[in-house]
Amino acid sequence: MKLAMLNDRIVPVEELDPVYFDRGIYFGDGVYEVLRSYNGKIFALQEHLQRFANSLAAIRITSVDISLVRDRVERAFLTVGLPNVKIYFHVTRGSAPRSHVWETDLEPNFFLTVSELVANPQEKARGIAVSTHPDWRWKRCDIKSLNLLANVLARQDATDKGCDEAILVDEQGRITEGAGSTFFAIQDKTLQTSPLSANILPSITREFVIRAAGNIGLEVRQECFTPQQAVSADELLIAVTTRDVVPVVRFDNVPIKDGAPGPCTKALAQEFLKFTR
Amino acid sequence: MKLAMLNDRIVPVEELDPVYFDRGIYFGDGVYEVLRSYNGKIFALQEHLQRFANSLAAIRITSVDISLVRDRVERAFLTVGLPNVKIYFHVTRGSAPRSHVWETDLEPNFFLTVSELVANPQEKARGIAVSTHPDWRWKRCDIKSLNLLANVLARQDATDKGCDEAILVDEQGRITEGAGSTFFAIQDKTLQTSPLSANILPSITREFVIRAAGNIGLEVRQECFTPQQAVSADELLIAVTTRDVVPVVRFDNVPIKDGAPGPCTKALAQEFLKFTR
Repeated sequence: MKLAMLNDRIVPVEELDPVYFDRGIYFGDGVYEVLRSYNGKIFALQEHLQRFANSLAAIRITSVDISLVRDRVERAFLTVGLPNVKIYFHVTRGSAPRSHVWETDLEPNFFLTVSELVANPQEKARGIAVSTHPDWRWKRCDIKSLNLLANVLARQDATDKGCDEAILVDEQGRITEGAGSTFFAIQDKTLQTSPLSANILPSITREFVIRAAGNIGLEVRQECFTPQQAVSADELLIAVTTRDVVPVVRFDNVPIKDGAPGPCTKALAQEFLKFTR
Repeated sequence: MKLAMLNDRIVPVEELDPVYFDRGIYFGDGVYEVLRSYNGKIFALQEHLQRFANSLAAIRITSVDISLVRDRVERAFLTVGLPNVKIYFHVTRGSAPRSHVWETDLEPNFFLTVSELVANPQEKARGIAVSTHPDWRWKRCDIKSLNLLANVLARQDATDKGCDEAILVDEQGRITEGAGSTFFAIQDKTLQTSPLSANILPSITREFVIRAAGNIGLEVRQECFTPQQAVSADELLIAVTTRDVVPVVRFDNVPIKDGAPGPCTKALAQEFLKFTR
């Protein structure tokens, strides 16, 4: 490489920080996790680390020691010393001049942030509105990768429509999941969500919501459904690590039943919180 | 944000370079171009800038002045002063704490590199081998975005099989394009390639190859074809900015005809070079 340029500034290549050659920025060649703590305790750390290990293996990043990641997460959490935080981390394949094919001796880059989480009781009390967007994501959404432009565009579209989440719909007209959440419907005491597949992130919150549903006597059906079915459901909700269970009260501008959070969703949210203690 | 961590090192957030908050790395929220010069002249600069403008508009990055990008490309090229170079550049939406939804006042980040290109006459004389891989890319491959993990994994798979390029095959069993190139077949004096669609990058080299085909008396058919059709073609080739026309002589380990570059491909490569003068 002969020259690099940052905005208007020409920079000798040898003076450039390796971060500018991170394969994460050239290709999104990395995977990430988001987890949170409740009242001073990290929730489902083992499950997140296991999913992270699965994502790394799926994109063939082989040199990351998961116990080291665990140590870093715990150290960062202790250093911040706040009870309710969001922990984000990613690993990229490493820094190198741009080439699709990778060198096997690359050293992965690890990056982590900790932010404070402030509870949003209004959101749970009132519920949120969602809008649909075509699911433009790649065909391996089971991998939690840094290729998130489809999610970003869908979420921004939802925001522009005054909604809090985009619900993604595939080419067959079926709902896959939210742009950053799992989407559920409740109908006749049955909780329904898409089955896990290559198009669905194996959400950890999803698993706990399914367990919570069993605990409060709901049936669980893992089967795709359509926007038309969603608007006629008894209740709708999303599940996501940072906000756990959030009622959905409007879908593409149509109120769900009376437009207020339903009783099963409230019971699910309460039951879910028991896992976090 | 309370804390950041780079590998094992805890870093105060306020000391962290904004590059670590580039939306390019969090989401692949940016678009790029690759162009090249032949003998001291940048090839198809206007076409690349127009495609770049289209990509920016498609992901709603609105504050980039394309004439400023042109100035930077030309300045970098002149500064390097070599006749045959590859110029890579990308723009990301900007740097901000991670959030899918973007702030409208973000300042885009521009990054560019110039590298020397060395001709590879052997490759053109002998041809290359390619192998197929499922097309895992997102559904807006008409946008030249930084979400390239599917391309990376496919290309690495090809390399592991001793091949130079991965040819992507969609769920219907049709070839879309190469992981980093356009793929063509020639059969009975007809050049065939997939039609432009949301699944296909509007390759600039592709357009010039199609023009070159007309000039040398080939018919052109823009219609998808399958791996089965590819192996029985008279000739196969890929087209890509940095290498222009490259003959393909093996497809999934099957030699194409006598396993040597065919006459139409050679004629196309010659004709193509006329555009670059």
